Amino acid sequence: MTKSYSLKVANARLGGFPRLLLRWKASIYKLLYKEMAIFVGLYVSLSVTYRFALNEPQKRMFEKIAMYCHQYSDLIPVSFLLGFYVSIIYARWWNQYLSLPWPDRLASLVGCVVHGPDERGRLIRRTMVRYLNLSAVMVMRGVSTLVYKRFPTMTHIIDAGFMTIAEWKEYESLESPHSKFWVPINWFCNLASEARQEGRIRDDFAFKALMEEVNIYRGCLGMIYSYDWISVPLVYTQVVTVAVYTFLLSCLMGRQYLDPEQKLEGHDVDLYIPAFTLLQFFFYMGWLKVAEQLINPFGEDDDDFDSNWCIDRNLQISYLAVDDMYLSHPPLEKDIYWN
Amino acid sequence: MTKSYSLKVANARLGGFPRLLLRWKASIYKLLYKEMAIFVGLYVSLSVTYRFALNEPQKRMFEKIAMYCHQYSDLIPVSFLLGFYVSIIYARWWNQYLSLPWPDRLASLVGCVVHGPDERGRLIRRTMVRYLNLSAVMVMRGVSTLVYKRFPTMTHIIDAGFMTIAEWKEYESLESPHSKFWVPINWFCNLASEARQEGRIRDDFAFKALMEEVNIYRGCLGMIYSYDWISVPLVYTQVVTVAVYTFLLSCLMGRQYLDPEQKLEGHDVDLYIPAFTLLQFFFYMGWLKVAEQLINPFGEDDDDFDSNWCIDRNLQISYLAVDDMYLSHPPLEKDIYWN
Amino acid sequence: MTKSYSLKVANARLGGFPRLLLRWKASIYKLLYKEMAIFVGLYVSLSVTYRFALNEPQKRMFEKIAMYCHQYSDLIPVSFLLGFYVSIIYARWWNQYLSLPWPDRLASLVGCVVHGPDERGRLIRRTMVRYLNLSAVMVMRGVSTLVYKRFPTMTHIIDAGFMTIAEWKEYESLESPHSKFWVPINWFCNLASEARQEGRIRDDFAFKALMEEVNIYRGCLGMIYSYDWISVPLVYTQVVTVAVYTFLLSCLMGRQYLDPEQKLEGHDVDLYIPAFTLLQFFFYMGWLKVAEQLINPFGEDDDDFDSNWCIDRNLQISYLAVDDMYLSHPPLEKDIYWN
Amino acid sequence: MTKSYSLKVANARLGGFPRLLLRWKASIYKLLYKEMAIFVGLYVSLSVTYRFALNEPQKRMFEKIAMYCHQYSDLIPVSFLLGFYVSIIYARWWNQYLSLPWPDRLASLVGCVVHGPDERGRLIRRTMVRYLNLSAVMVMRGVSTLVYKRFPTMTHIIDAGFMTIAEWKEYESLESPHSKFWVPINWFCNLASEARQEGRIRDDFAFKALMEEVNIYRGCLGMIYSYDWISVPLVYTQVVTVAVYTFLLSCLMGRQYLDPEQKLEGHDVDLYIPAFTLLQFFFYMGWLKVAEQLINPFGEDDDDFDSNWCIDRNLQISYLAVDDMYLSHPPLEKDIYWN
Amino acid sequence: MTKSYSLKVANARLGGFPRLLLRWKASIYKLLYKEMAIFVGLYVSLSVTYRFALNEPQKRMFEKIAMYCHQYSDLIPVSFLLGFYVSIIYARWWNQYLSLPWPDRLASLVGCVVHGPDERGRLIRRTMVRYLNLSAVMVMRGVSTLVYKRFPTMTHIIDAGFMTIAEWKEYESLESPHSKFWVPINWFCNLASEARQEGRIRDDFAFKALMEEVNIYRGCLGMIYSYDWISVPLVYTQVVTVAVYTFLLSCLMGRQYLDPEQKLEGHDVDLYIPAFTLLQFFFYMGWLKVAEQLINPFGEDDDDFDSNWCIDRNLQISYLAVDDMYLSHPPLEKDIYWN
Repeated sequence: MTKSYSLKVANARLGGFPRLLLRWKASIYKLLYKEMAIFVGLYVSLSVTYRFALNEPQKRMFEKIAMYCHQYSDLIPVSFLLGFYVSIIYARWWNQYLSLPWPDRLASLVGCVVHGPDERGRLIRRTMVRYLNLSAVMVMRGVSTLVYKRFPTMTHIIDAGFMTIAEWKEYESLESPHSKFWVPINWFCNLASEARQEGRIRDDFAFKALMEEVNIYRGCLGMIYSYDWISVPLVYTQVVTVAVYTFLLSCLMGRQYLDPEQKLEGHDVDLYIPAFTLLQFFFYMGWLKVAEQLINPFGEDDDDFDSNWCIDRNLQISYLAVDDMYLSHPPLEKDIYWN
Repeated sequence: MTKSYSLKVANARLGGFPRLLLRWKASIYKLLYKEMAIFVGLYVSLSVTYRFALNEPQKRMFEKIAMYCHQYSDLIPVSFLLGFYVSIIYARWWNQYLSLPWPDRLASLVGCVVHGPDERGRLIRRTMVRYLNLSAVMVMRGVSTLVYKRFPTMTHIIDAGFMTIAEWKEYESLESPHSKFWVPINWFCNLASEARQEGRIRDDFAFKALMEEVNIYRGCLGMIYSYDWISVPLVYTQVVTVAVYTFLLSCLMGRQYLDPEQKLEGHDVDLYIPAFTLLQFFFYMGWLKVAEQLINPFGEDDDDFDSNWCIDRNLQISYLAVDDMYLSHPPLEKDIYWN
Repeated sequence: MTKSYSLKVANARLGGFPRLLLRWKASIYKLLYKEMAIFVGLYVSLSVTYRFALNEPQKRMFEKIAMYCHQYSDLIPVSFLLGFYVSIIYARWWNQYLSLPWPDRLASLVGCVVHGPDERGRLIRRTMVRYLNLSAVMVMRGVSTLVYKRFPTMTHIIDAGFMTIAEWKEYESLESPHSKFWVPINWFCNLASEARQEGRIRDDFAFKALMEEVNIYRGCLGMIYSYDWISVPLVYTQVVTVAVYTFLLSCLMGRQYLDPEQKLEGHDVDLYIPAFTLLQFFFYMGWLKVAEQLINPFGEDDDDFDSNWCIDRNLQISYLAVDDMYLSHPPLEKDIYWN
Repeated sequence: MTKSYSLKVANARLGGFPRLLLRWKASIYKLLYKEMAIFVGLYVSLSVTYRFALNEPQKRMFEKIAMYCHQYSDLIPVSFLLGFYVSIIYARWWNQYLSLPWPDRLASLVGCVVHGPDERGRLIRRTMVRYLNLSAVMVMRGVSTLVYKRFPTMTHIIDAGFMTIAEWKEYESLESPHSKFWVPINWFCNLASEARQEGRIRDDFAFKALMEEVNIYRGCLGMIYSYDWISVPLVYTQVVTVAVYTFLLSCLMGRQYLDPEQKLEGHDVDLYIPAFTLLQFFFYMGWLKVAEQLINPFGEDDDDFDSNWCIDRNLQISYLAVDDMYLSHPPLEKDIYWN
Repeated sequence: MTKSYSLKVANARLGGFPRLLLRWKASIYKLLYKEMAIFVGLYVSLSVTYRFALNEPQKRMFEKIAMYCHQYSDLIPVSFLLGFYVSIIYARWWNQYLSLPWPDRLASLVGCVVHGPDERGRLIRRTMVRYLNLSAVMVMRGVSTLVYKRFPTMTHIIDAGFMTIAEWKEYESLESPHSKFWVPINWFCNLASEARQEGRIRDDFAFKALMEEVNIYRGCLGMIYSYDWISVPLVYTQVVTVAVYTFLLSCLMGRQYLDPEQKLEGHDVDLYIPAFTLLQFFFYMGWLKVAEQLINPFGEDDDDFDSNWCIDRNLQISYLAVDDMYLSHPPLEKDIYWN
């Protein structure tokens, strides 16, 4: 689930952002430490080879190749590629958040306009919001690995109370090779149409309002489905990945400390620890990891959207709104500014 | 059809993105390998000429030209041009996806508000959604090469069941030198108007809701048509293409390994394989290929939208929604949280 | 009129974009060749002067100035300025396309809800859509040079059948120092109001739907008018123009081939033809020409919107929709998937 | 008032943009010439000091400092800061234009749906649109210096006919420490409500349409107010200003022509006039001036929105639409394409 | 509260932006001076150590390390990272402003359509707008530290008159582990539904209009809640923070003035005060501080939104609109342009 740190940065002050560097959960360290270990390992092996395993002519050759790698590694436009790519991924990520379906408005509307305090009225209201949640679960199963793990089969959905067995049979009886997540939404519409004819929905406005709202809800589900279906073109991701990885590989060789005795340009000092190269690894790989984490926000990363929590919350809130709160409000009282 | 790889990158982990480099379908390799072969071929010819065919004074001249090419190739602002250009192309591409017309909402609405279980009722509902699909097919034929191959003539559209012969005659009888893809949409409106007068659409709200939804659908068709009609200005595409190609041409000459004996600056070592130049080719050409693939998403690239699949899916779903599911929903049952 | 090349780039393949370089219509060559000729002319004059007209001390001075120009020409941030500026211009250009007023939806609605097969009914419907087209013509006259050439006076508009003489008199009788393009839209509203009272528009919903649609149409006209009225601030355009032109001027001097005998840095070879400088001219000037072409899409460039075509198309389509197609649709038949 | 130059750049042609450099009104020259004079003055003083006032050791020191300034001035990321900052300011500027309140649509609607040709009907219609204009004037007074100069007190607003004395008293009687520009909008709503009850607004749809439109209008006023209230954060503007000014200050020293005799790197020639430095001043300062001009478009710059003109135009157009044009349209005639 | 400086920059003129540098409130100085002090302190310590504490070999080593730091510090892509990151943060910040809930439109609508001058009518109207304000307070408490300080417990909300004790009990009786800020919105809907049944809301349109408006209001609350819940991914913030801080740390060492006697490249002069390094600190740290200030606009920074002021203003305005102004407007009078 997303780790919010808004409260920690409410005020700009001394050490505001640096303090965030101390977190581990959802942090860059947690994402990077394995890659960092491999990178350091490779760097050290090369360094040890150069210092101890090579003879003099081999060392001279090693130095030439290192100089060559150093010179050309700057030709790879990593910053530019990453800057534009991460902007695209970030925008997709936020739009995916905005497309999450929340049934609050629909539930509130159902509670307001589908009348009847009797059992059938209650049944209709509860079934309508259950349809909405069912539809969302079906979409989320296909999108989120966590939701899929929770509901690997339709039976799990039925057991969890999102669907009845009769519904499942009706659902299965509709033949289509394509995704049918929208079927419960259509049931919702048909049930609303029936409620209108029974007079439980008292006027055409309310019916139209329900149709408008359910279309917005359906649009959200469609967008969630689309973002999963249409990824950022693979080519783009591959180009960026190759750019970053080859840049870092060339750094392995090109940023070796060479023997200061050889008077090679820019190699006056041997500090053993390539601090700046590690930092560059940190920035570029970290920037790429931002993309990797955001490209599919329905996974199990620390910062991914908690789909299962959403599903539970939505069902609970839906029933609360249409059932417990049906047409009730606290007694009216004069407020303290009445006069 | 678009290759989704969302599931593979659900979690950010070690080797998340690198794993994507192993795919061939829709990959950068598949798009680039021919250009790469030509590039390598030219590079090798130049290299062989320099090493074996030229005499000493010619070699010196070759070296001077190579140094000159190397020096100036950096003046070409390839990264910038590509960064801004690909951003524009990407935004167009996604907006084109968002403009794809889906009849789901309209079909659901038709199923809800055009009443009558009799044959004429059924006929009206099926015809209405067929009009929608017909209109989409007409637009897609003009936009997508694949759809055009499938429906080269109107007869193919009639054979596929999107249009009747009577409709075709009526369509032809309307004289206009301009595109008439919107005609079936107007039939839809007129038929809805008729259904309202027959009382099959029971109230004015439902009629207005249909009009609003059909206008959104018509808007999508218009956008798809527009994106095809108004390309990104040719000038921009030409400038970018010339920039990338001339940059790569200048690299052919400027990145040759020159005789280390001549002590030319930056030419201390002869590695035969110009690894960094190949990488640069890979990045810049790959970045350009991203644009080339996205600029028209209705072609036959691996990552293009599968228009024919959409057409089939939409027709099937439309009939399902207005016919099989007409006013039906599963029996109401108490859910497991009833008390 | 815009030259579409979408079909040529439907598939990403070998030589996809390069093939576009062979086009002349709307191409960069057509836009640039005059500037290129002037640039080459100036370069050659300077070069000839240097090589043949100057004596030795003058040559040395020339070389110093050339080196100086070369060194400082890189300080001018041309890429950045152009990148951001062209992005803004491109966004404006596309928004202007999106603001083009299409009467299709309104015509379809008028055909659906303004009833009466008698002559007066027909007259009302035709007049309503004519008002819409008249309003658009009035706006386009002020915006597009081509439309202005076609309708230099109101008489031309009357002759073309967009306005009657009575309407012209009424129009003139309204005193206002400001643009009155919206007057026919208000006539449209008033006529709709009258039709509602006559019962030809049968319900208030239809009337409200007409008002909503006509407001969207009016909004488009207003936006077209605004884009013409409020240009991109002149200052920005001037800064970009000065940057590009002075950069190119400095290249004229700074990129001269200097005598290799003098052993000046970076001047080891005299190739006579400054290939890279010409390419740079091509890129930067081409990028600027993209902006120049897009900044006013209602001119006579090859890639500009064809306003006159739009006007003709809209009038023809409008009459077709409200008259020939009034409440008609093909006979209903069972489709081939009926069972 | 904004200077439109759209017509001058309708066609991309030889010298299209350069021709714009000849304008003075709203031009970069007009904005910059004072700063330029100061800059040149300082440069010349330093130059004269160096050449004539300093002795040899002082000259050497001066040269060292100049070299140092030259070397480090490139470290300041002026292009980047300006590119991103101006993009933000430009977007704000255009959104502010889009938020300008135009009463056209509301006036047209009032003219259509508030019935009654009698004096009271006329009074209601005129009063309703006057309320709209009054509300706009109140907001614009707080935002635009020009409007404030025109209406320094409420008395001026009353004298100009936007408000009656009775209204002013009612307005004053409402106690609130906060801005009350929305009060006339609420009067508009209440008056519409009254007109509905009197039957002058004949149906609930029309009333709802008025409410919807007036909310859009109120939203525009709110946005204009917000853009004035919430500036771009001061910190951002300060960072950009400091960056540009210190960069230019460092150029004053770092771009001095130093004695060619000293054989300092890059100082082979003494041209006296620092052409490129002046150009850089021109670009960077010009770019900053773009921001300075756009950051508040309600001032008195040549390119600012002409708020007073808008106010006059809106009042005149409003009365025209609801009064002169009330329910009138030209006599219906057959158009020339009737058959 | 946001410091507006719009008025100071209404006109672009000599010294327009520079004048802003003299402000302290909400200024970059106020945000930066502590970091600046620490930075200067560290720089001075290093400088003193180098000049006085080290022996010759140590000095040589120090110089080598300083040269190394200087050389590599430019490899860190700080400008790029900051440019893209601040753009994202800025967009979030402005969208958060746009999501602030203003009850003006709803209050105006309630005043228009919930009829009844009797006490119960007044009670319903006042209660409805109070519910809206209560809901906003509940959301703001969770988001803004200032609002939380003002209302640490529900009792404080009750005391401030936003809630009655009966309401608090009803609120508590609804069991849900999730945030219940939307409960008063549902009460609003239910109360509206009741008012419709009592006939105080006279028609279905008005009821639907209320539902639409309240949904927009609820959407704003949801967005405010979301922006707090879903931060910009921590990884991105960490990468940017590390980049800026390590760049500045490397400057501490790399920008030391080294002994000019050693003839090190770029170290010809010892000016003691590292003016350009301080400027760089100023730009990069300032740019980062822009992000730090904008990332949570509900804190206590000088430029943050003044949530408590908003809450007070909204309550006062709401009561004013539905109570004092209920159906009242000034007497109608002929305006001065009547004839």
